[in-house]
Amino acid sequence: MISLEEVLVKKISKISIKNQEVACRDRHMTFRLLCKECNKNYPINTSQWKCDSCRRPLNLVTELPRADRFDQLTDKSERGLWRYKRLIPFSEDPVTLGEGNTPIVEMKSEGVFLKLEYFSPTGSFKDRGAAVSLSRAKWIGVKGIVEDSSGNAGIAAAAYAAKANIRARIYVPKDAPLPKRLIIHACGADVVECDSRKEASTRAVNELKENELYVGHTWDPFYIEGMKTAAYECFESGFVPDVVVTPVASGTLFLGLYKGFLELNEMGFLDKIPAFYAVQGEGCAPVYEAAHGPIQRIKGSSLADGIRIDDPPRKDEILKVLRKTSGDVFTVNDDEIIDALKDLYKKGIIVEPTSATVYAAFKKANDLKNKRVLIPMTGTGIKTVDKISKLFIL
Amino acid sequence: MISLEEVLVKKISKISIKNQEVACRDRHMTFRLLCKECNKNYPINTSQWKCDSCRRPLNLVTELPRADRFDQLTDKSERGLWRYKRLIPFSEDPVTLGEGNTPIVEMKSEGVFLKLEYFSPTGSFKDRGAAVSLSRAKWIGVKGIVEDSSGNAGIAAAAYAAKANIRARIYVPKDAPLPKRLIIHACGADVVECDSRKEASTRAVNELKENELYVGHTWDPFYIEGMKTAAYECFESGFVPDVVVTPVASGTLFLGLYKGFLELNEMGFLDKIPAFYAVQGEGCAPVYEAAHGPIQRIKGSSLADGIRIDDPPRKDEILKVLRKTSGDVFTVNDDEIIDALKDLYKKGIIVEPTSATVYAAFKKANDLKNKRVLIPMTGTGIKTVDKISKLFIL
Repeated sequence: MISLEEVLVKKISKISIKNQEVACRDRHMTFRLLCKECNKNYPINTSQWKCDSCRRPLNLVTELPRADRFDQLTDKSERGLWRYKRLIPFSEDPVTLGEGNTPIVEMKSEGVFLKLEYFSPTGSFKDRGAAVSLSRAKWIGVKGIVEDSSGNAGIAAAAYAAKANIRARIYVPKDAPLPKRLIIHACGADVVECDSRKEASTRAVNELKENELYVGHTWDPFYIEGMKTAAYECFESGFVPDVVVTPVASGTLFLGLYKGFLELNEMGFLDKIPAFYAVQGEGCAPVYEAAHGPIQRIKGSSLADGIRIDDPPRKDEILKVLRKTSGDVFTVNDDEIIDALKDLYKKGIIVEPTSATVYAAFKKANDLKNKRVLIPMTGTGIKTVDKISKLFIL
Repeated sequence: MISLEEVLVKKISKISIKNQEVACRDRHMTFRLLCKECNKNYPINTSQWKCDSCRRPLNLVTELPRADRFDQLTDKSERGLWRYKRLIPFSEDPVTLGEGNTPIVEMKSEGVFLKLEYFSPTGSFKDRGAAVSLSRAKWIGVKGIVEDSSGNAGIAAAAYAAKANIRARIYVPKDAPLPKRLIIHACGADVVECDSRKEASTRAVNELKENELYVGHTWDPFYIEGMKTAAYECFESGFVPDVVVTPVASGTLFLGLYKGFLELNEMGFLDKIPAFYAVQGEGCAPVYEAAHGPIQRIKGSSLADGIRIDDPPRKDEILKVLRKTSGDVFTVNDDEIIDALKDLYKKGIIVEPTSATVYAAFKKANDLKNKRVLIPMTGTGIKTVDKISKLFIL
C-alpha cells in the first residue's frame, strides 16, 4: 500500500494572486489541476479557476492510493467528510462545520433510497463542497473569497469563510429567496445584489480584488472533491445503487457522486459504476437540450431556482457521464415538482423544490422501476418556506 | 449478559383509548411507566400522560441489560438513534426519518464542544423525541396524535406523524414564528392557533378525541427516551464532558441527556456523571426562580421563544438533577443572547436564538472555564430568519 502522505513533499512556495505574493505550504504534490480539453497542467496552488488557453474548467487529478480494503484508507477517528482525508486535498487542517455522514432513508413504498443532504451545517449539499474549497482558501492564505450563487452555495461559502476567518463577498441575483440572502449577511459576508444570475457570475469575477480567491462553485474543482465523499459514504454503508438521479445546474453533485463511485471502481473496491441520470426544470434545461434537442422554455418558472444555470461550464463533462454510464437526462415541469414536493412533505421529508425535481423524475421514469435508485435530497425546505406557503396554504 | 429480547413476552392485549378498544402487540414487558411522586405503576401501553392520582408526569422505567462493552448493546447496521434500539421501547418497527448521529464540533478558541442537533430531519433536537413518541403511537395503533408547541416540537410531531401515516393536530400560540406554522401545515397536520402558549396546552388536552393520543412533549416520557441517545453518541465517540449546559423549558433535552449518562453509569461503562447546568431566558425562568428565588421578569422578551414555559411539569426532576450533579441554573438576557448569536454566526454556526442562550451562559460562567463543556445546539437558525433579520440587518 502506497501512502499518500509518503509522497507528499513539504516546501514553502510562493504563488501569485492578482500580483500579490502569498506564502503557502505546498504539501500536496500528488494533486494537480488539469484542463481535460487541452491537457494543460496547473499546480494545485494556482488561483486560476479556468484554463488560460481554452477557457474550460479545470479538474483535480490525483494518484489514487492502493489498499486491500477501503476502510484502510479512512480515518476512523472522524465521522464526516474528513473521514476520507487521505483522498481529499487540503485535509491537514481543514475548515469544518461537521459536514458529511448524512443518512440514507429508504422509502419502502416507492423502492427508492433518499440520501438526506440537508442534515448539514447550512442545510444543503453545498456544505461538502464549501468545506474543501474553503480549506483550500485557508491553506493558500487568502484574505477574501468571492462566490456567485442563487442561495445555497452562497450560504455555504459564507458560513465556511466565517469559520475560517476569511472575508466573503457573495454575488446573488436579486430574486434569490430573502431568507437565503439574510443568512449570508448574518454570517458576516458582504452581499452584492445583481439584476440576474448571469450578472452575478460576471461581476463576481470582474470585481475580484488583490488577495481574493474566486471559489465560484460552478467552476471550482474542489467542490467536486467534497461531493465525491457522498459516494464513499454510500459504499461504506453497504449501499451501492444501480442508478443515481440528481438535479443538475452546474453539476457539482452529479459529477462529484460520479467521481466518488469512479474512484472506488478504479481502486478496485467496486465492480460497476451506477447509471447516472440528470434532472432539470423545463424553464432552464441546457443539458437536456444538448442531449435531446431544443425544447420550449417555460417562462416564469421559478420553482427550481436552485438549478437555473443557462450555460453550465461543465456541461460537456455532464454529457460524457450520461453517455458513459448509459444514463439519461429528464425535464420536469412545475406541476410535477409541486406534486412531488407535496408527496415528500406528506412523508415527513421537508425539502426545497429542487429536491422534489428528482423525485418527480423518478416517479415518471418507468425504466427506473425495480432498480436500486439513489436520489439525493439536496436542501432543506425551511429556506424556501415562502414558496411552500404559496403551494400549500393558498 | 441478559438480553432484553429474551425477557420480552409477546401477547395480544387490548388497551383503552378514550373508551375505544385498540388492539396492540405488547412486546415491551420490561418497560413500564412509573409516577415517581406516588410510586404508582402504569403499563407501557397506557394512553395516560400523567398520574391519575397525583397529576404528576410519568417516567419510563426499565431493566437495563448487562454487557462487557457498550458496543455489544448497539446495532451496528444502524447509524442513528436506532443504533440503540435495545435500550429504547417500540424499536421493532420504528418511525424514522434518519434522526440522530449528530456531529460534535470543538470550538477550539473557546474550549467548548457543540453537539449540532440541527443536523436532523426537521432541524431541531425534538426529532429524537418525536421519533420514539410516534413509534409508540404507531405501535399502539392510534388514528391521530395531538401536540402543543411553540414550533420545533410541533414540526417534529407533524413530520413523524406524516411518516407514520397518522393524523396530527398541533396547537400553537398565534405568536409562534410563521415559518414554523407553515411547515407543520405542509406536513399535512391541522394547525390550531391559540391566544397563548398556555391556552395551546389546555386546549390540546381538552379537545382530545376518541382514538387520539396526546404526545405533548412537556409531559411525554418517550421524548426523554429519544433525547438520551445523544448522551450515548457522546460516549461512543469517545467524548464524555465534565459539564453539560442546556437550555431548559420543559426540560426534555436536559433530562434526556442526564438519563443517557446515568444509564451508562448504571450499566458500568462510565464512572462519573457530568455536572448539569440549565439555562433560561430572563423573561421566563421558573427553574431559576425555584432554585435561587424570584427575579424581575422582563416583559416582551421573545428571543428565547423556544424556552418559554411558565410551569414545566418536570420542574422538580430538573431541580433534582441540578442538585445531584452539583450543577446550577443561569439566566441570560436578550442582549447576551444577541451577542452570543452574532458570535455563533460569525463562526458559521447557524442556529436559533434558543441555542445562543447556552453559549451566552457559557461565556459568562467563569466556573465552567478549563472544563470539558458540552453544549447542544438545539435548532437551526433558518426557521427563525425573521428574527435574525431584525438583529443583523437593521
